Amino acid sequence: MSLLSVGTMAFDSIESPAGKAERIIGGSGTYIAWAASHFYRPIHQVSIIGGDFPQKEIAELAARGVGFDAVEEVKDGKSFFWSGKYHEDMNTRDTLVTELNVLERFDPRLPQDYTHPNLVMLGNLAPDVQASVLNQLTQKPELIVLDTMNFWMDVALESLKDVLKRVDVLVINDSEARQLSGRHSLVEAAAVIQNMGVPCVIIKKGEHGALLFEGKEIFAAPAMPLADVHDPTGAGDAFAGGFIGYLASLGNYSFNNKKAAIIVGSAIASFCVEAFGVQRLKEITKEDIGRRVHAFERLAAFDVDGI
Amino acid sequence: MSLLSVGTMAFDSIESPAGKAERIIGGSGTYIAWAASHFYRPIHQVSIIGGDFPQKEIAELAARGVGFDAVEEVKDGKSFFWSGKYHEDMNTRDTLVTELNVLERFDPRLPQDYTHPNLVMLGNLAPDVQASVLNQLTQKPELIVLDTMNFWMDVALESLKDVLKRVDVLVINDSEARQLSGRHSLVEAAAVIQNMGVPCVIIKKGEHGALLFEGKEIFAAPAMPLADVHDPTGAGDAFAGGFIGYLASLGNYSFNNKKAAIIVGSAIASFCVEAFGVQRLKEITKEDIGRRVHAFERLAAFDVDGI
Repeated sequence: MSLLSVGTMAFDSIESPAGKAERIIGGSGTYIAWAASHFYRPIHQVSIIGGDFPQKEIAELAARGVGFDAVEEVKDGKSFFWSGKYHEDMNTRDTLVTELNVLERFDPRLPQDYTHPNLVMLGNLAPDVQASVLNQLTQKPELIVLDTMNFWMDVALESLKDVLKRVDVLVINDSEARQLSGRHSLVEAAAVIQNMGVPCVIIKKGEHGALLFEGKEIFAAPAMPLADVHDPTGAGDAFAGGFIGYLASLGNYSFNNKKAAIIVGSAIASFCVEAFGVQRLKEITKEDIGRRVHAFERLAAFDVDGI
Repeated sequence: MSLLSVGTMAFDSIESPAGKAERIIGGSGTYIAWAASHFYRPIHQVSIIGGDFPQKEIAELAARGVGFDAVEEVKDGKSFFWSGKYHEDMNTRDTLVTELNVLERFDPRLPQDYTHPNLVMLGNLAPDVQASVLNQLTQKPELIVLDTMNFWMDVALESLKDVLKRVDVLVINDSEARQLSGRHSLVEAAAVIQNMGVPCVIIKKGEHGALLFEGKEIFAAPAMPLADVHDPTGAGDAFAGGFIGYLASLGNYSFNNKKAAIIVGSAIASFCVEAFGVQRLKEITKEDIGRRVHAFERLAAFDVDGI
């Protein structure tokens, strides 16, 4: 039993209306591993880092059941670096710097015992890299979840469409769903994407929650209304990590379990934004997550009588 | 027992990506009355019309339990007229024509038996007109709901703030809540508006549903994901009408009942947009609304185990 997770491990410099953080630990793979490891172990991490990546961060994740046999360390290289500034609305941001560094030569190689995971989380990366990981698997996983972004639709659309045919769940935000499908209505967008060969589509809408589409079924998850957002970075990755980690712990990927996993992912994402970087993901306990899940239950519950 | 409803009765010409409709019946008062009369009668309508307003429309509403003793008919005047065009996204629109006509001289006078309603729905109108209706009441209603729009924040902010102190529930959309409060976060916006003297604030987010704030409680209602929107005109009025009509039928305005009433209002609004004007509000039955409410229940239900 294992969860294979592919994503970046990186440095971020972030400025938001709530403050600044310089060269803190980030990357989709880091956020996913911290979120998923609340529910499931081992996580087999697939990534690439430079000699500058702190051993302490690796040791902390290893203590959480994350395996590093497929994390390539380029001793004389520098880790991926991203710098961005969030606008007053916290929904939009400007990228200030992107230094690919070691990511430019990322060509993941799975050790033998990583080639038959039960679940696979393909974090936001070049579609060809995501596909190359799937190509190395020796048996079909029970569940493959893929995250992507508009950048890959701009520069690698055909590769993205190819890898989408091989996954079970696509996690995407609303503007990306519209771009990928060419439809404004999210219901129509989801149908177009399902027709591309993805049975299940999750459309994230930031402060408006998320929509889950599978077959003809739809689930609308609320977002926790938050007065105090410090840093939205990694919230989408934390959501995906919480989603697949909780599903992995259940071992059954029914529509009802996916609904529950979206709430768990949303709860973890709502913690993630409370501080810069992965700090809150490190601090929170499973009990904290449980309390936040109950807050989601209270937030969304209603009972209509007499109609 | 009665529900007093103040709003326009008008003609609309509407163009949307789904088609065109010329000089159809519209106006906030018309939509509110059609929506609320599914649940509660009598509705005492307060409005002003020209000699051009069709008697047939009045007869249809009268048959639904709507009283017209406070609808002033200006025989030689023309009814309020609005014309607009919706963009491809159906969320934004351009106003092409606004002819106030008889609305310019609207100075509502309540007959004696309209002066002690149980509930009051103040549809979107000049705040001074809304206040003048409240000034004529001889006893405090059990519930006053007010709808408004950004236009009144631009031209009559102090009057609006004065009348807000006298109402129980404000219904407003997200951009209006941000304008009125000066806050981007909707949680903060609601708190600022509550501090203006409104105990309960409902923030409508269009395709993203609605948020209800009362005291420290929050409820997040989903919107029905719709592939086929013909005409968004009046959806907000239909929501408000369904909300107050259903609450009136319960006779108890607890937080839980307000949550249910938001779902009922959302269900009615989801019918409203399926065709131009009030057509769908005329066609649907209480059973149709019940089925749509159950669809909302299925849409929003989840159950998280084991955390």
